[in-house]
Amino acid sequence: MMARLGGVTDTRRPASFGSDNHAGAHDAVLAKISEANGGPAGAYGDDDWTRQAEQQLARLFGAEGGVFFVSTGTAANVLGLSLLLRPFEAVICAESAHLNVDECGAPERVLGAKLLTVATPDGKLTPGLIEGRLGGRGDEHRVQPRVVAITQVTELGTCYSLDELRELSAFCRAQGLRLYLDGARLANAAVHLGCSLADLAANVDVFSFGGTKNGAVGAEAVVVMDPSITAVVPYLRKQQMQLASKMRFLAAQFLALLEDDLWSRSAQHANEMAGRLAAAVDGLPGVDVRYPVQSNAVFAALDPVHIKALQADWNFSVWDPDTNVVRWMAAFNTTEGDVDAFAAAIKAVTSGQPYHPAI
Amino acid sequence: MMARLGGVTDTRRPASFGSDNHAGAHDAVLAKISEANGGPAGAYGDDDWTRQAEQQLARLFGAEGGVFFVSTGTAANVLGLSLLLRPFEAVICAESAHLNVDECGAPERVLGAKLLTVATPDGKLTPGLIEGRLGGRGDEHRVQPRVVAITQVTELGTCYSLDELRELSAFCRAQGLRLYLDGARLANAAVHLGCSLADLAANVDVFSFGGTKNGAVGAEAVVVMDPSITAVVPYLRKQQMQLASKMRFLAAQFLALLEDDLWSRSAQHANEMAGRLAAAVDGLPGVDVRYPVQSNAVFAALDPVHIKALQADWNFSVWDPDTNVVRWMAAFNTTEGDVDAFAAAIKAVTSGQPYHPAI
Amino acid sequence: MMARLGGVTDTRRPASFGSDNHAGAHDAVLAKISEANGGPAGAYGDDDWTRQAEQQLARLFGAEGGVFFVSTGTAANVLGLSLLLRPFEAVICAESAHLNVDECGAPERVLGAKLLTVATPDGKLTPGLIEGRLGGRGDEHRVQPRVVAITQVTELGTCYSLDELRELSAFCRAQGLRLYLDGARLANAAVHLGCSLADLAANVDVFSFGGTKNGAVGAEAVVVMDPSITAVVPYLRKQQMQLASKMRFLAAQFLALLEDDLWSRSAQHANEMAGRLAAAVDGLPGVDVRYPVQSNAVFAALDPVHIKALQADWNFSVWDPDTNVVRWMAAFNTTEGDVDAFAAAIKAVTSGQPYHPAI
Amino acid sequence: MMARLGGVTDTRRPASFGSDNHAGAHDAVLAKISEANGGPAGAYGDDDWTRQAEQQLARLFGAEGGVFFVSTGTAANVLGLSLLLRPFEAVICAESAHLNVDECGAPERVLGAKLLTVATPDGKLTPGLIEGRLGGRGDEHRVQPRVVAITQVTELGTCYSLDELRELSAFCRAQGLRLYLDGARLANAAVHLGCSLADLAANVDVFSFGGTKNGAVGAEAVVVMDPSITAVVPYLRKQQMQLASKMRFLAAQFLALLEDDLWSRSAQHANEMAGRLAAAVDGLPGVDVRYPVQSNAVFAALDPVHIKALQADWNFSVWDPDTNVVRWMAAFNTTEGDVDAFAAAIKAVTSGQPYHPAI
Repeated sequence: MMARLGGVTDTRRPASFGSDNHAGAHDAVLAKISEANGGPAGAYGDDDWTRQAEQQLARLFGAEGGVFFVSTGTAANVLGLSLLLRPFEAVICAESAHLNVDECGAPERVLGAKLLTVATPDGKLTPGLIEGRLGGRGDEHRVQPRVVAITQVTELGTCYSLDELRELSAFCRAQGLRLYLDGARLANAAVHLGCSLADLAANVDVFSFGGTKNGAVGAEAVVVMDPSITAVVPYLRKQQMQLASKMRFLAAQFLALLEDDLWSRSAQHANEMAGRLAAAVDGLPGVDVRYPVQSNAVFAALDPVHIKALQADWNFSVWDPDTNVVRWMAAFNTTEGDVDAFAAAIKAVTSGQPYHPAI
Repeated sequence: MMARLGGVTDTRRPASFGSDNHAGAHDAVLAKISEANGGPAGAYGDDDWTRQAEQQLARLFGAEGGVFFVSTGTAANVLGLSLLLRPFEAVICAESAHLNVDECGAPERVLGAKLLTVATPDGKLTPGLIEGRLGGRGDEHRVQPRVVAITQVTELGTCYSLDELRELSAFCRAQGLRLYLDGARLANAAVHLGCSLADLAANVDVFSFGGTKNGAVGAEAVVVMDPSITAVVPYLRKQQMQLASKMRFLAAQFLALLEDDLWSRSAQHANEMAGRLAAAVDGLPGVDVRYPVQSNAVFAALDPVHIKALQADWNFSVWDPDTNVVRWMAAFNTTEGDVDAFAAAIKAVTSGQPYHPAI
Repeated sequence: MMARLGGVTDTRRPASFGSDNHAGAHDAVLAKISEANGGPAGAYGDDDWTRQAEQQLARLFGAEGGVFFVSTGTAANVLGLSLLLRPFEAVICAESAHLNVDECGAPERVLGAKLLTVATPDGKLTPGLIEGRLGGRGDEHRVQPRVVAITQVTELGTCYSLDELRELSAFCRAQGLRLYLDGARLANAAVHLGCSLADLAANVDVFSFGGTKNGAVGAEAVVVMDPSITAVVPYLRKQQMQLASKMRFLAAQFLALLEDDLWSRSAQHANEMAGRLAAAVDGLPGVDVRYPVQSNAVFAALDPVHIKALQADWNFSVWDPDTNVVRWMAAFNTTEGDVDAFAAAIKAVTSGQPYHPAI
Repeated sequence: MMARLGGVTDTRRPASFGSDNHAGAHDAVLAKISEANGGPAGAYGDDDWTRQAEQQLARLFGAEGGVFFVSTGTAANVLGLSLLLRPFEAVICAESAHLNVDECGAPERVLGAKLLTVATPDGKLTPGLIEGRLGGRGDEHRVQPRVVAITQVTELGTCYSLDELRELSAFCRAQGLRLYLDGARLANAAVHLGCSLADLAANVDVFSFGGTKNGAVGAEAVVVMDPSITAVVPYLRKQQMQLASKMRFLAAQFLALLEDDLWSRSAQHANEMAGRLAAAVDGLPGVDVRYPVQSNAVFAALDPVHIKALQADWNFSVWDPDTNVVRWMAAFNTTEGDVDAFAAAIKAVTSGQPYHPAI
């Protein structure tokens, strides 16, 4: 379930709808990296940029346990989960969860942890769904469920409402479970929900806050709400091969995203572009939009012939080859023109009209 | 055995002798990152910058097995070793090896591999030293030595000569062992030895080629000489949490280092600055230079009182608190002025003269 | 999904229907252990009893790769799978598989392997079911399916026919998959199918052959069909903490089971007792036998009130509390009298008659 | 560093001096196993024999955290250590420790833990030796020493005195370290020191108590002093593949060893036989006894020609081929006649006299 450009990069196309990872970095991020390059600085995070970024993020989230930078989303998930698990404890997650599907077994390999997966209609766990995986507690033959891992925005582009998060959180507390959140696209969720990052953070124990899909070069933050966890994080981050020597350059990316709420403005824009696309194509005879469009992704079922025709000119990925569901993603730098041209192409192709690419 | 700036970054000082990680990034590296930011590109390495950087490096090294980018030196070592080991196989390395001392047990945790360590006078393994750890082959109670891991430049700033590498390589082949090389500072070795990167690569099976300590933001390459290994690398890199989504920005760093041999010129300069420093202080009554200066590091034993006095103004690290050995490192952007000022400070402090910092 | 006696052992009852693990050891097994106790012998399997048992079993199975003893079923499964997997490769198995449910995450922890589970109607995989988990081959983000693990007799008491095994085997070969078989109750399958152990072995790459549930004290064999695998097994067995120093006492248990086909006679008897029980209760109004009775287990759905009433006097376990399915197991030493008394009790309880325990 | 009989078992020899693992099982152990075979019993330790053995041992050791049976010494060490370690924490042990040398890397593989080894003159750690491995505490780049693991009797046949144990224990407490003890031959130590098992247990956090080398078929106990650890042990034992389904047969072995202090009498005898052998050969011109004989092992340096000559008729192992040190071990059933005949053979061979085997 990746999205790749495939073949030669076509520079005639100003945008890819394949992934928010295709978008490159925001200029402000690169500028801040350059700025952080002024003179020597301590390594491994012992520098002012890192301290500032850590503190700003911690304040924003109300995270008393601190903030730790890593370079990939998989690394963030593995580090985050490793803070919450003992060797015989398991993670309950959606079948569609990135950590189950798209991390090449890193949680099992690096953490030795079993994932107890649950089929969901929309990528979202509920107390009821979680409850079905709580059997065998206290039985030494069975892994012991300990962490519930959710993704916000989910892999299907949907968002947990704050009420749903609170309900999950209360359920987890009542059940002696910890709540981990994969926030690779947390910014998009905050924008969609119209809430603060602190509102989202309030309900979880540990979470990641993704920079990469929101205009960073490659930087994710692991955020720890509970200060009793903090002491072990530096060792685990290093052991998990994620202690950057020139940490300031990871930190600078977040400083750029935080400045004037760039993170929020970029996510807002990406969400709007996805919404614009969905609005343009939903209801078209050959386009079956599949999930509520609550972030920067649109999922839709199309005739495979139409998929093929569209892919001749446009970059996007087939999410599920069995059901012919494709994923269209907007990014911080997707333009209205990109969306409109793509929507026109979709309309043309699915209506059976002769299709002339815009260029 | 880290080097940190400690406390507030002192911008009055133009240079740190604490680590080549303190030096920031080369402007050409940042420029190339910006250049690679032009428009959408495939994720996870499916882009032209990555393909170019991989191919250029593979050609440079004569690496038929390919080149794979990761973000940290620890990650490079773990990925590299993982290509060569089965679960019951062990790594023979120097006690002083980074992978033994400074990776928080990542090889044991992530690979499950035992390190069979050998004390060395200068950080360098020899066939004789390796032989002492070859006992128990064929005995099911014992881990089976399979990989010899060396560091070039070693952690003590010394270099294996090409003859020594060839001898090690021949010994390993004869013994059915594979040779891995931690090349976090391989550029400095190539410059010191006056040889090509291909000369260095010719003797090993898998190695890392460090960019970070040579002016990159944070990029290392794992280089595979044997094409029969290649097929598994992508999975292992991803599982080891090192598959960057916006890989082009790792690749761009290497493209910058390769352009006009920036890697070589930068390493040359750093080596020269270390040589200049060593020449200036070697022979001083209170300064006992400890290893041959064959790269960008100078190790010296000093009176602990002198160490303390120097550290009030200058950033460097105590390598071994038991023997009062300090490490002074030069980087691509260390200036002659930096060196001369620092040498003057060392001279003043160790001669007992009243010491006035340059500023 | 364990079966335990619970509370004080009630010696008035000659038999438990809770598990074939409740049955103790066959006298012939204890006698052979005593016999093997005559004088000193080499440790770690370097003794004549071990050599004999290994050879006899290898001959029986046509196993050119050899036979290796371990002490538990979980250890056998983990060792067996470890022979077939690389770090990024996954195991496809039924959701109900012992290795998924009842090994406290040992495959994930010890092997680092992901299990790709499949819901099945009767504990049995089919090519079609396996196919549904083969997505993502060649995609570095996904674990790569490599081993299909089946259980014979399944955890639900059902058996794969030889045709089904052949079909699975052919499918696996065609797909580049290896076939592992958890044979904790393989003896019962051989008896049910009326085939030789070699017939069962012919279709798989590595499998376990259980002694414990068939009258041994505690001994399982890992059988390797492919001799190219053999060289690594001793190391992996030792590393997995299963190299018994006084191996002859594991071997002796198998020698006893092999003598005069005790393994087959015991399994035959256990199967017959389960069949006798099923015949006696199937069709009773309150008893819904759930799977074909093809071994020494009977699964049935009962009214929870009836379950509780029966458990007051008889030992058996509730397999699935959600569906009120119980498991009744016969062993090598279950008597016809045991079965008849138990069947009478079931009949009485489920028919609502006043129930008087036999004693 | 194993001891194996090698070749065909020579039944003319009533005893092997190769290993206490060569000795077979004590008749009382086999008798108790048979006794435990009367009727059905709960699986996985839910039976009266297990409860009795656990309680008796816990009382004997004053172990408030409970007692857990496993089948091998390696499994006991790995389980014991796993109770005390977090992922980034390391074990300080002697280079000669069984867990370092003879467990095929199980601690690294199963626990992911680094062993920080120390060369010792006699297999025994001291606070001073431990202190040398405590560098880097608080440094995220370094594994954090957390457990000191000692062996009692050591692999070199020596014993820690109670004073030495107390000193180690106090040092560990002061340093925030936990003390683990590999007690594969703890019985021999208790006998040598003339102390109770509780005296030995008082100083450690978790330890193993070996049955196998003292006349059991194959049974080790992991003893937990601190009840706050207890809750996780069942899961970890199962996950580490050591939960025996017919646990009563492991328990019965310990019940036999406990009855009338068989454990003590057997160890006493074995120690005496080693003492008798040492007394007979120490001082012989060609025999250099190497360590204090404080248990059931005698280490001695011999001329390699003499070693070879002796091994033609007698079973024992070469401990260190570089120094021609051999190990002679007595067991519970070694007879005075065995010892005297062996001593005579040693005397004859090393004095250059024509040597006639006793038979």
